[in-house]
This record gives sequence, C-alpha cells and structure tokens, in this order.
Amino acid sequence: MAFRAALRNTSALSGLLSQVSSCNHGRVCASSVFVVAQQRNNSTSPKITVDFDQSTGVAVMRMKSPPVNSLSLDFLTEFCISVEKLEMDKSCRGLIITSSLPKVFSAGLDIMEMYGRSPERCGEFWKAVQEMWLKLYSSNMVTIAAINGSSPAGGCLMSLTCDYRIMADNPRYTIGLNETQLGIVAPFWFKDTMANTVGHRTTELALALGLLYNPNEALTMGLVDQIVPEDKVMTTAEQAMAKWLAIPDHARQITKSMMRKQTIDKLTAKREADIQNFVGFITKDSIQKSLRVYLEMLKKRKA
Amino acid sequence: MAFRAALRNTSALSGLLSQVSSCNHGRVCASSVFVVAQQRNNSTSPKITVDFDQSTGVAVMRMKSPPVNSLSLDFLTEFCISVEKLEMDKSCRGLIITSSLPKVFSAGLDIMEMYGRSPERCGEFWKAVQEMWLKLYSSNMVTIAAINGSSPAGGCLMSLTCDYRIMADNPRYTIGLNETQLGIVAPFWFKDTMANTVGHRTTELALALGLLYNPNEALTMGLVDQIVPEDKVMTTAEQAMAKWLAIPDHARQITKSMMRKQTIDKLTAKREADIQNFVGFITKDSIQKSLRVYLEMLKKRKA
Amino acid sequence: MAFRAALRNTSALSGLLSQVSSCNHGRVCASSVFVVAQQRNNSTSPKITVDFDQSTGVAVMRMKSPPVNSLSLDFLTEFCISVEKLEMDKSCRGLIITSSLPKVFSAGLDIMEMYGRSPERCGEFWKAVQEMWLKLYSSNMVTIAAINGSSPAGGCLMSLTCDYRIMADNPRYTIGLNETQLGIVAPFWFKDTMANTVGHRTTELALALGLLYNPNEALTMGLVDQIVPEDKVMTTAEQAMAKWLAIPDHARQITKSMMRKQTIDKLTAKREADIQNFVGFITKDSIQKSLRVYLEMLKKRKA
Repeated sequence: MAFRAALRNTSALSGLLSQVSSCNHGRVCASSVFVVAQQRNNSTSPKITVDFDQSTGVAVMRMKSPPVNSLSLDFLTEFCISVEKLEMDKSCRGLIITSSLPKVFSAGLDIMEMYGRSPERCGEFWKAVQEMWLKLYSSNMVTIAAINGSSPAGGCLMSLTCDYRIMADNPRYTIGLNETQLGIVAPFWFKDTMANTVGHRTTELALALGLLYNPNEALTMGLVDQIVPEDKVMTTAEQAMAKWLAIPDHARQITKSMMRKQTIDKLTAKREADIQNFVGFITKDSIQKSLRVYLEMLKKRKA
Repeated sequence: MAFRAALRNTSALSGLLSQVSSCNHGRVCASSVFVVAQQRNNSTSPKITVDFDQSTGVAVMRMKSPPVNSLSLDFLTEFCISVEKLEMDKSCRGLIITSSLPKVFSAGLDIMEMYGRSPERCGEFWKAVQEMWLKLYSSNMVTIAAINGSSPAGGCLMSLTCDYRIMADNPRYTIGLNETQLGIVAPFWFKDTMANTVGHRTTELALALGLLYNPNEALTMGLVDQIVPEDKVMTTAEQAMAKWLAIPDHARQITKSMMRKQTIDKLTAKREADIQNFVGFITKDSIQKSLRVYLEMLKKRKA
Repeated sequence: MAFRAALRNTSALSGLLSQVSSCNHGRVCASSVFVVAQQRNNSTSPKITVDFDQSTGVAVMRMKSPPVNSLSLDFLTEFCISVEKLEMDKSCRGLIITSSLPKVFSAGLDIMEMYGRSPERCGEFWKAVQEMWLKLYSSNMVTIAAINGSSPAGGCLMSLTCDYRIMADNPRYTIGLNETQLGIVAPFWFKDTMANTVGHRTTELALALGLLYNPNEALTMGLVDQIVPEDKVMTTAEQAMAKWLAIPDHARQITKSMMRKQTIDKLTAKREADIQNFVGFITKDSIQKSLRVYLEMLKKRKA
C-alpha cells in the first residue's frame, strides 16, 4: 500500500519511491529486518513531532518519517503514544494531523511489515494498526486531518478517522483505499469507516477497484470536506478547528460517540479474530508472492 | 432550542424572542410553573387547528402557538391527540402540517420545559416528545411538511418524520438539528431520523456542529425535497399530496413500514431508558447553567 | 410489473404490450395456465443465449424471451441454471447481462405468474425470484448489466445485483422499482439492494411512489453508473469489464462478499417466511382484483 500513490503521478515518483530505494539497501531481505527494527527502536530522532499550544488548546502532530510516512510498527507505536498523551491532557481539546514531508501525507501501511515477516510479528503489527484506528476514531478531541500530500490506503484510513478533512488542491495528490490493487483487502472496519463517510455504494466501487481519487473527486464524493491551495491547508485547519471548538465539549463528544460507537464496538468485539484473519491472509504463499511481484515492479520503475 | 433561529436572522428576532419576553413575566421562575401550566391546560384557544376536507381525504394541521410554535408539553399533548384522531378516521388519508405564524414553522422543543423543572416533569415532557415522533414517523397517513418558516431542532425533527418536505424559499429561514449549539444533544432517534434522510456523514457533521441550513442548502443535501416561493408552499403541498394519494394505500403503507420499522422499534425498545437518560442529562447543574446562560444572552439581545 | 414501462412511453407500447396480447389468447384464464406452463417447459428454443469467450474469460448472457423478457418461472429457472454453470467454470471470471430484444432489458416479474395461480405455484415462482437474486448478488464473477432498454421492477432488481451498470442513453427508457404503482410491494431484499446502491431516503421515495427514472435521472441518483449512446452499451461494458478483471480475483471477491454478506444473510435466514409472506399477500382477493384491473387497463390501451 505504501507506494501506490507513485503509480499515478510520475512527478511524485522520485519522492515516494525513495522508500523502495531504502529497501534496496537492506530492508527487503527478511534476514536484515530484525536488525533494522532494532535500529529504529533505538533511533533518537522521533518520527512524529507534536506542538501543543496551551493558549488555544490545540495540538499539531506532524509526521516526519521519510520518505513517505509509512505506517510501520515503530511509527504506529510512537503515533499511538503521542495521541494517548494528548488525550489524557484535559487542556488539549483539538488535534491537527499533518505531514512534514513534501508531497505525501502518509503512504499507508508499511509493506515491509507484511512481507517476509513471522506470523507473530504480523499480528503485532496489525494490533498496532487497530490501535491507531481505535484511538483516533473514538478520540474525545476534535481531530482534523490537514492532508498536504497523497494519502493512499492506511493514510486515507487515518484521515477518515478524523472529524474533518482538508486536502491540498494539487491534482497530483491522491487519496483512497486502494488495497485491492496490490491483491490485498481492506478489512471490515476500514470499509465501515469509509461507508460512514461516503455511503455504501461509493465504498463498494472504491474498494472493489482500489480507486484513488484526486482532490476534486474526493471533495465531490465527500471523501474530504474541503480542498484549498496547498499553502492554505494549515491556516484553514486552524480556522475549522476554532469553529469546532466553539461547540461545548460535552455535547460534541456525546454526539461523536453516538455516531461512531456501533462501528467501534464491532471491531472491539472482533479484535482478536480480525488479527488472526489478517495474519492468516497475509502470510499465505500466494499473497507473499504478489507482494514480491509488486515490490519488484516498483524497483524496476525506479531503475 | 426554541430560540436558535433568532441567532442567524436579526429580522426574525423580534418575533422569535417574544417568548423570552413572556419568560420574563412569570415563566422563568420555577415556582410559577405549575400555575402557568394549569392556565395553559384550561386555555380555551387551541394551539392547533385542523381542517379536514372529506372530499379529498386530506387534513391540514396548522400550528398557532405564538410566538414561535414551541413544543411545550401542552402543545405536544394537543398535537398528539389531533394526529391520533385523524389516524383513527379511515377517511383521512393524508395530513399536511404547517404553521399559522409568520416566519416560523416551529422553533422546536420549548426550552422552558427543560429549565428549572423537576425530574418528573422533565420525564413527562420527554415522553411527549417521543410520542410525537412515534405517531408521525409511523403514521399510516401520507404526511407532508409545508415548512413556511424557520424550523430548528424539534421543528426540524417534526419535518423529518414526514413523507415529504416542502420549504419556503426564503433565505432568512433555516432548518437543522442545532442542539449542540445550546450545549445539549440530539438523542439517537433524532440522529437516526436525520441519517435515514441525509446519510451518516452529513448527519455527523450537522449534529456535531449544530448546523442550521438555509432552504437552498437544505435542498442540496436532501434535508427537504422541494423549495418553492413562500406563497406557493401550500398549493405545492396539495399537489404533492395528490401524487402520493394516487398510490394504493396498502402498498404505500407496507412500504413505509418496511423503510422505518427498524428505527421505530429501536426507540420503542429503549423508550424508558431514553427518558431516564434525558432526565439525568438535562437536570445536571452544568446543563442547567448553560441553559440559563443561553436564556440570558437571548434576553440581552432582545434588550 | 411486467408492463409498467409501457405506461410512460407510448412509442414502446406496441412492443411491450404484445405480452398482453398473448394473454388475450389463452394465458389470462386460470384454467389454461397449466397447459401453457407445460408448453413452455417443453420449449426447444431457449430464452437465454450465452456466449463464453475463453480468451477473455468473459461470458455474455443475452435474454431473448419476447416480447419483453418477463421473468416467468421458466425464464428464471433457465437463467439460474445458466448462471450456475458459468459460476462453476473456473475459467469464467466475468459476466455481462444484456437483452436481445429491442427497447427492453427486462420488464420484470411476469405478472401472469402472480395472477390466478395456486399458492403452491406462487411459492415456487417466488423461490425462483429469490434464487436469481441470491445467485447474482453473491456471484464470484464480475457482473455487469448492459441495460439496453427499459428495466422496471424485477428488471431493475436484476441490474442492481450486478457490480456495475451501464445504461443506453435513450430518454424513452426507464428504470426503477415501481411495484407500488401496481398495488404490490417490493420485498425487504429488493429494498435492501436498492438502499445499498442509492441510500435510504432515495429508496424510500422511489419505492413509496413507485418511481421510474430516465437514464439521466438514474445516473444522477446513482441507480446506474454510466450512460452511453445505445450502440456503445456493449463495447463500454467490455471496457469496464477489462478494468474490473485487472483486479486480482481473490481480493475483489473478498471485498464483494464483505460489502454484501449481511444483506444476503438476511434473506437466507428469512427465506421461507418471505415466501409465505409473498404468497399470503399476492393471493388475497383484493390484490388479485387490482392485478385484474391493471391487466384490463393494459388491454384497453392496446386496443
């Protein structure tokens, strides 16, 4: 999923494919994965920066995990810890999520977490993806996605969990749940989140064909709420946040819970089965093979 | 809720705020409530007039409870009795609901029924709100809302229960479930009714921000079915009614029940819990305080 | 249902009403029904032709049951057998459904299967309608409806079960679930299929009033996915099919099942009750009378 945006926009290719480049230098081989993971855990440079403005009660979370803010296990762990800290701080009422990297919001789940990994590791990874979704979709804070770049697959999911979505009006950027294009499948709670946003039929079509949409299309179908020039994304997010914060917290929070509880309860009740389902699927020989084919195609494109 | 429309349209302010004026003269004080309620019950001027045309099988119900057709316990009781009478008259096949007052269809739940009242009285009031919804949403008659004025909160809910909605195309009029703006919350069956009409995401956004829409916006999002010049609202409603009555009653009624039964069953099953939930919420000190602040703000605006 | 399209387009009348003509010559009388049914079963000319292209993996199914591809018990039986054969052939990945007749895709359920029949026969017929829906809505193949003519009632349902719908852009053609116009009712699974496609409110309005839409309206509301000039329907369907087949089968199939399983499970669980419900309804004297009135009106129009 992490590389899909590259397929549609050759201009964005160099940036988005630098991850493949890093794969070439040590991450594609399963044998080197553990070492890399260790290095990452010990990394002193965080993958996310958080600026919290006490005067407004609004935190801005900037993702900066080059080259494309892939959602690796490490990234997700750091992300969830950051969200939880803000959630527990009563003075923090709003959260804006954006990217510090050019051209990409988040390229989605890190394909390297799904390729050549042990079932245990895959399960751990999937639990972290669930955790991100649960934390964001049920957050008591007002959450706004300031989508300043492409946002395929897991990047789109992250956006969809927010209360409001503002996207940079750059026709080279795309957003969507394009999993089937890689031969994998968005799980039911990705589907539910999208259907809650754009309805059943649009979701059926989008998921079946793995469609990615440009900002204009995304606005028309309701996948995002606003599109603005790229340099206005953050200021627009701040203005929208002020509007949301004008509503009394308790009324807004009860309303949000009422809208989302059923969808959240569904995953909570089936969480372990969903992990087993993912692990069983992703570790199949046929799926591993199609991920390998996909990675090799990307490497060739780069070369 | 009863006064929200006033906030957006200063021109409508004088009409809508006269209720606040009446509060000043005896209804705000909890001690005077019982007396006022008694007076109302004994009132000889009805809050609703019903004209039933035997030749067409269509009844027109006109709300005339100045200044803004607030849904008080008395009003709701009279309303439900009127609907039930028509429902039991086999010759009555269609019902058009409209307002006899200028500029307002109904300003929604009477805030004075929620401020400074005993839990018992609050519970009685809420049961009457449920009753109105249950009667209208499951009516065997064709129901058409001829929305000839602003219709916030409970007024919007009343419209949403109808089979068809025609609104006066006056940009000063607004419609929507704006409860959160007052620090209160639309219950799940308000939410379900709106989601059945405009979908999940539009409802989430509308309820979270307590949005009110002008007629054009309401038409675009599907909150109303038609907008027409103000003096054409009733004739358009009559024409629409003729179209609906051309469908055999039994086929239309079975279809209506099929579309709405699940939503109705949900409230029926949770009715008592929903009352307890409302009473527990509305009698909280913090909620009472925000209602007081709201009332005081309105009084100042008026002055 | 079978004749409804005729009501809106006098130009299509002669074609669509020839079925009524055949009714005049032996099928309206209940006593002659069994004989006719026998004749049909022994018919050597199939009502459906199937062309399967091994090189593309795509089958084209052409309905040719003059005059209007009514869904009789015989037709449905043949239809289901054809679909099942293709479903079991692993090399068949896609199915395009279209009509060989001019001006009509399918006029829907054969009214003659519902008029003057024994309860047993009605039950057998309804089971076949369910079977068609279950087979198509859960098909592992990519299914595309190439709607090259009017498609009321059961014809609309058949289209709605497909993954994608392309309609001929001829303003004389209509599509919709217009059952209430005949005094009968679309069952819950017709309703669910339509609501999954165009949403709850649009479905409520469409079913209550038995609305038929022209291609432009159908496109705007999402009832069909594309409209193209009449002579481009098949080539467009083939192009769309190629796009769908570019998605790995397993990912697409899992996604399709995820989107539709709940709706399918609902009918599966209530199948017998749904048959009893249909039989009880359709054999009522009042319903039989309104079908007779309808048939007589059509005969008069023809004359």
